[in-house]
Amino acid sequence: MQTEPMMTRKPTDHYPSRIGQEPALLNRVDPVVYSTWSADSPLTKEQSAFYEQNGYLFLENFFSSDEVKDWKAELKQLQKLYSDREAEHVIREPGSTEVRSIFAVHDNNPVFRDLSHHPRLTAIMEYLLGSKTYIHQSRINFKPGFTGKEFYWHSDFETWHVEDGMPSMRALSCSIALEDNTPHNGPLMVIPGSHQKFVSCVGQTPENHFKHSLRKQEYGVPDQDSLTLLAQNGGIEMPVGKAGSVLLFDCNVMHGSSSNISPYPRSNVFVVYNSVENRLVTPYSGQQPRPDYIASRSDQ
Amino acid sequence: MQTEPMMTRKPTDHYPSRIGQEPALLNRVDPVVYSTWSADSPLTKEQSAFYEQNGYLFLENFFSSDEVKDWKAELKQLQKLYSDREAEHVIREPGSTEVRSIFAVHDNNPVFRDLSHHPRLTAIMEYLLGSKTYIHQSRINFKPGFTGKEFYWHSDFETWHVEDGMPSMRALSCSIALEDNTPHNGPLMVIPGSHQKFVSCVGQTPENHFKHSLRKQEYGVPDQDSLTLLAQNGGIEMPVGKAGSVLLFDCNVMHGSSSNISPYPRSNVFVVYNSVENRLVTPYSGQQPRPDYIASRSDQ
Repeated sequence: MQTEPMMTRKPTDHYPSRIGQEPALLNRVDPVVYSTWSADSPLTKEQSAFYEQNGYLFLENFFSSDEVKDWKAELKQLQKLYSDREAEHVIREPGSTEVRSIFAVHDNNPVFRDLSHHPRLTAIMEYLLGSKTYIHQSRINFKPGFTGKEFYWHSDFETWHVEDGMPSMRALSCSIALEDNTPHNGPLMVIPGSHQKFVSCVGQTPENHFKHSLRKQEYGVPDQDSLTLLAQNGGIEMPVGKAGSVLLFDCNVMHGSSSNISPYPRSNVFVVYNSVENRLVTPYSGQQPRPDYIASRSDQ
Repeated sequence: MQTEPMMTRKPTDHYPSRIGQEPALLNRVDPVVYSTWSADSPLTKEQSAFYEQNGYLFLENFFSSDEVKDWKAELKQLQKLYSDREAEHVIREPGSTEVRSIFAVHDNNPVFRDLSHHPRLTAIMEYLLGSKTYIHQSRINFKPGFTGKEFYWHSDFETWHVEDGMPSMRALSCSIALEDNTPHNGPLMVIPGSHQKFVSCVGQTPENHFKHSLRKQEYGVPDQDSLTLLAQNGGIEMPVGKAGSVLLFDCNVMHGSSSNISPYPRSNVFVVYNSVENRLVTPYSGQQPRPDYIASRSDQ
């Protein structure tokens, strides 16, 4: 008697995107805060509840100005180093040679490796994600004064899910401000509560498009109707503050930033923490995984 | 005995621009408020002093929501009218057919003619400019949601002086908000106190470039060092408020706006009042005057 061939059942994709002709607004099926709050938690009860409800949390003056000074000095070194040296993990402004992002600083720079494993940060990440964590991605972003370009609305998770194979919404981003952020220098804007919905985007994902998409977003772009609905429900917030502040935001919160014509550059260290129970699988787009400096698989 | 030929002495140009190789920061030689304040003045003493010091004044809830409703209805009519009709005084978004500005609405539209001659506005203009006034320019601006483009820093006077022949700083702009303005939808930003300095710009002015410059600024662009200095001294402000608010700003105050990725459009009626004692002369660039719908000479 012939047995049926053994089938590997692909887990249900709760967050399909870039496969349909019509955009869709789906409900999140994952928790936001994966631990139960107690007096020992590294966030106050109010902070934890705020994060759960809004999908982000702004921690003013989290790091001292002395710490920030050291990181800015290191950042200057890196800018100098890469000013005329090409490297795969260094991304420049569209239409310019100016350095916009340096990826994988947790991996290739001792100063930022220490920062991304800072015990005060790790404690919060483990609390929010309810497990040990690892670093999915890190980068330094420079948004120059006068000519800083806008970055349109997006959910990071949409990309990480489709292009990197991140199964669930169990990751978060941590943005450490190296300059004062004001409403004038193109700060990050978030749509509070948008992390509870998943905007399924239209269109396909071309092979190897990531090199371009890091400079200008063309795939995984949410539709205007969904954005309008999310903003009508949650409004738009601009969490700004002094250098040394930390912005935590859920992997699925809708965010973006306007252009920066002010004389003030905006730079930050950006670290994405993922739960060790949410390691990457095959990309849901069915394509080749993106390189390790964008979506780490090496810690697995 | 031969007499020397009679020479017409050109008045001294206190604000030369686009003639040198190096930018320069010159002092303003004109007053800001041309009247002496009294209890009968249409602004409070504090408002008048604020305008004089900062070069702008924000008047929250100046017009009622009913008035705004009528103007928005009229604006919709105009957008519809010009959606597929070309007209010299209708300017579209760069790289798009979307209407960005309709000029000369004080002249060619009865509703906005009445608005621009509103007695409450006229009283303020005559107080600040110390004389009867006329309308130098008017327009409705649309900054669409999601795709509104940035507009880089500039002094209006620099252009009006060089390209239109406005002799002195004795004009001001009045922007009437037809939508709520927030820090998120690309509102106007001003550099307080910058009206006291004139940034002399480098470069020449090509003939007939205005059709393009209304869409994208390329000439009369202030240099980064001057902008940095002005912002260091005065900071950057974003006067925002509800629809019906009015922003007055001196013709020489440095201003600009970021892109608008929010779902919320930003539209306003924009009227420039000039003193009848400051009528246009030959453009200081030595070129042909721009058309009347951009710089009115017909009321003279």
